[in-house]
Amino acid sequence: MMKATAKANTNIALIKYWGKRDEKLFLPMNSSLSITLDKFYTITTVEFRKELDKDIFWFNNKQANKSDSNKVSRFLDNVRNLASVNFHAVVSSENVVPTAAGFASSASAFAALAAASTKALDLKLNEKELSILARQGSGSACRSIYGGYVEWKKGEREDGKDSVAFQILPEHDWNLSILSVMVASSQKAVPSRDGMKRTVETSPFYNGWLQTVDKDLEKAKEAIRVRNFESLGKVVEANALKMHATMLGAEPPILYWQSGTFEVFQEVQELRSQGISAFVTIDAGPNVKVLCMPQDELKVYETIITLPHVQNITICHPGSGLTYI
Amino acid sequence: MMKATAKANTNIALIKYWGKRDEKLFLPMNSSLSITLDKFYTITTVEFRKELDKDIFWFNNKQANKSDSNKVSRFLDNVRNLASVNFHAVVSSENVVPTAAGFASSASAFAALAAASTKALDLKLNEKELSILARQGSGSACRSIYGGYVEWKKGEREDGKDSVAFQILPEHDWNLSILSVMVASSQKAVPSRDGMKRTVETSPFYNGWLQTVDKDLEKAKEAIRVRNFESLGKVVEANALKMHATMLGAEPPILYWQSGTFEVFQEVQELRSQGISAFVTIDAGPNVKVLCMPQDELKVYETIITLPHVQNITICHPGSGLTYI
Repeated sequence: MMKATAKANTNIALIKYWGKRDEKLFLPMNSSLSITLDKFYTITTVEFRKELDKDIFWFNNKQANKSDSNKVSRFLDNVRNLASVNFHAVVSSENVVPTAAGFASSASAFAALAAASTKALDLKLNEKELSILARQGSGSACRSIYGGYVEWKKGEREDGKDSVAFQILPEHDWNLSILSVMVASSQKAVPSRDGMKRTVETSPFYNGWLQTVDKDLEKAKEAIRVRNFESLGKVVEANALKMHATMLGAEPPILYWQSGTFEVFQEVQELRSQGISAFVTIDAGPNVKVLCMPQDELKVYETIITLPHVQNITICHPGSGLTYI
Repeated sequence: MMKATAKANTNIALIKYWGKRDEKLFLPMNSSLSITLDKFYTITTVEFRKELDKDIFWFNNKQANKSDSNKVSRFLDNVRNLASVNFHAVVSSENVVPTAAGFASSASAFAALAAASTKALDLKLNEKELSILARQGSGSACRSIYGGYVEWKKGEREDGKDSVAFQILPEHDWNLSILSVMVASSQKAVPSRDGMKRTVETSPFYNGWLQTVDKDLEKAKEAIRVRNFESLGKVVEANALKMHATMLGAEPPILYWQSGTFEVFQEVQELRSQGISAFVTIDAGPNVKVLCMPQDELKVYETIITLPHVQNITICHPGSGLTYI
C-alpha cells in the first residue's frame, strides 16, 4: 500500500518571513518565528499508483485548477527523486483554512503533503528533513511541521540544507490566544509570492527591514523564554507594521490594508488604553490577527465582533505539529 | 505706524518634507514640492508698540495658549534682530485652515507672520528673504510665500541661507483640483514635529526615503513641466505612502491612518478602475487630499462625500502667494 494521510496545522508568523533569496528553493532573506495554530489545518491523503500516467489533485472535493495541480506535481517530483521512483499519485486535500484571506493556507497544505507523500513511499524522514522538504513547496510550510512556537533559521547554504525550522517551545508550555479576524474587503490582493518579489526588487526600505529583523527575532524569543506577553506583543506588532512598510515603498506600492483592517487596529489601541494587553499582526491581506492573554480573549472577542466591517472571528491557540491519520 | 497686515495661503506638499537636519533653523533633510492652495489661509496683523513689555498674541479672536505665544515671540525675536529694535508687538491672526487636521496650518501662519511683521518694521525683504525667515517658524511656511507650484531646495549650508523656496510654475498656468477630505477620527495624532524627529532618530527606513526622494522630486517637476497629470499623480501618491512607511518603522511606530483614511484610499482606487484619474496624498493626520483634473472634480466629490466616515470636503485649486492688506 503506497498510501498515507497526514494532518498539518497552519501557523501565524510573529516575526515575518518576507522576501526570498532563492525563488526556486524557497530560501528566505531573513529568519522568522511563528505559532502553529489549533483551528486551521489541512488533511491530505496521497496514494501512489503504478498505473497512473499523471498526478491527480483533489482539493476540497473538487478537481484542483491547473496552477495548483502543477505546484503539487512539481512538489511530488522532489519526493519521487528522494525515493527514486516514478509513480504518479492521487492527492486529496481538505483545507480548513480561510484561503486567500491573508492566512498562509499553503503552509499547512505543503506540510501535510510532505508528510503524507513521504510516508506513502515509506521514506522515514525525520522532522528536520520534512521541514526542508515542505519548505520547497511554500516557505512557511517548513514551520508547520512542528507544534507550538517555531523558529525558521534562514540558513547560509546555497542548497538550502540549513534553511530549516525547529520548535523553540511546545504548545502546552505557554497558552496564548490568537483571534483570527476576517474583515469585509473590496479588492483582490496581490499574491504574497508576487508581493515579496516586488518588494525585494524595488523597495528602498527592504535593507532597513533586513537590518532590524534579527533584533526583533531575538526580542521575541527572549519574551517567549520568560513568558512576557507585553514585550512579545510589542515587538510582534512593530514587526508586522515594518513588513507592510517595506511594501509601501515598492514600485508600484503594495497596500494590503483596508478600511476594516484599521477598524480592528483602532479598537485594539482602544483596548490597550483600557488596560487590556492586546496586539495585532497582519499578513498579506486585509484580515487581522489579534494576540491577547487567554483571560482576556472573551472581552477582546466581544469588543471586536461588533465592528461594522468584521465578518467573523476564530479564537485560536497554540496547536500541535504533524499528525498521521 | 509700525503696523501691517498680510495674508498667506497654506500649501499641500506633493513631494513631502519629512525630517530635519537642524531642529533650530528648520533645515530639512530633503527638498520638497508643493501647491499653494486658494481656500485655506491665515490673515495676520502685527503692530509693534513701544509701550508693551511683552508680545500679545490673539488667535482666532482668543488669547493664544502659552505654547503658541512662545513660538510667535521666538519668531518675532528673529525679526527684531533683523531690524535692530526691541519693541514688542500685538499679533492677531485669523486662521481659515482645519487646524491639527493633518493640514499644515503653521505654513500659512508663519508665512503671514513673516510678511506682516517685517512690513510693520519697514524691512523691505524680498520673497527669497521672506521665505528663509518664514522657514524658521515652521519649515513648510517657506513654501507659502509663493503662489502656484513651489519647490523648497533643502540647501547645504549650516546657517540655512540656501534653504529656500521658489516658484516653479504660477498658479494660473496649470489648474488642478485638490479635494481636502476630512474624515471622522478617534485619536489624537502625534504632532508632526515629534513624528519627524522620532522617524529620523529610530526608523530603519529613513535612509531609503532619502535615497529616493530626489528622484521623486525630479519626476514630479518633469510631470508639471509637461502638464502630465497621470504621471504627477502616480509619483505624488507613491511619495506620500513612502513617507508614512518611514514612520511605521519608528520606535514606537507612528500610524496616522485610520479607518476613514482607507475608505477614501479604496474609493480613489475604485475611481481609477473606472477610468477617472485621481490620486491621494496624506500628511501627518488621518485626512486625505485627493488630486484630480478639474473636469473630474464634481464626480470625485460626489463619490467621496457619500463615504460613511467622510465629514466634509473642500475643493481647492492652486492659489496665490503672499498678499498685503
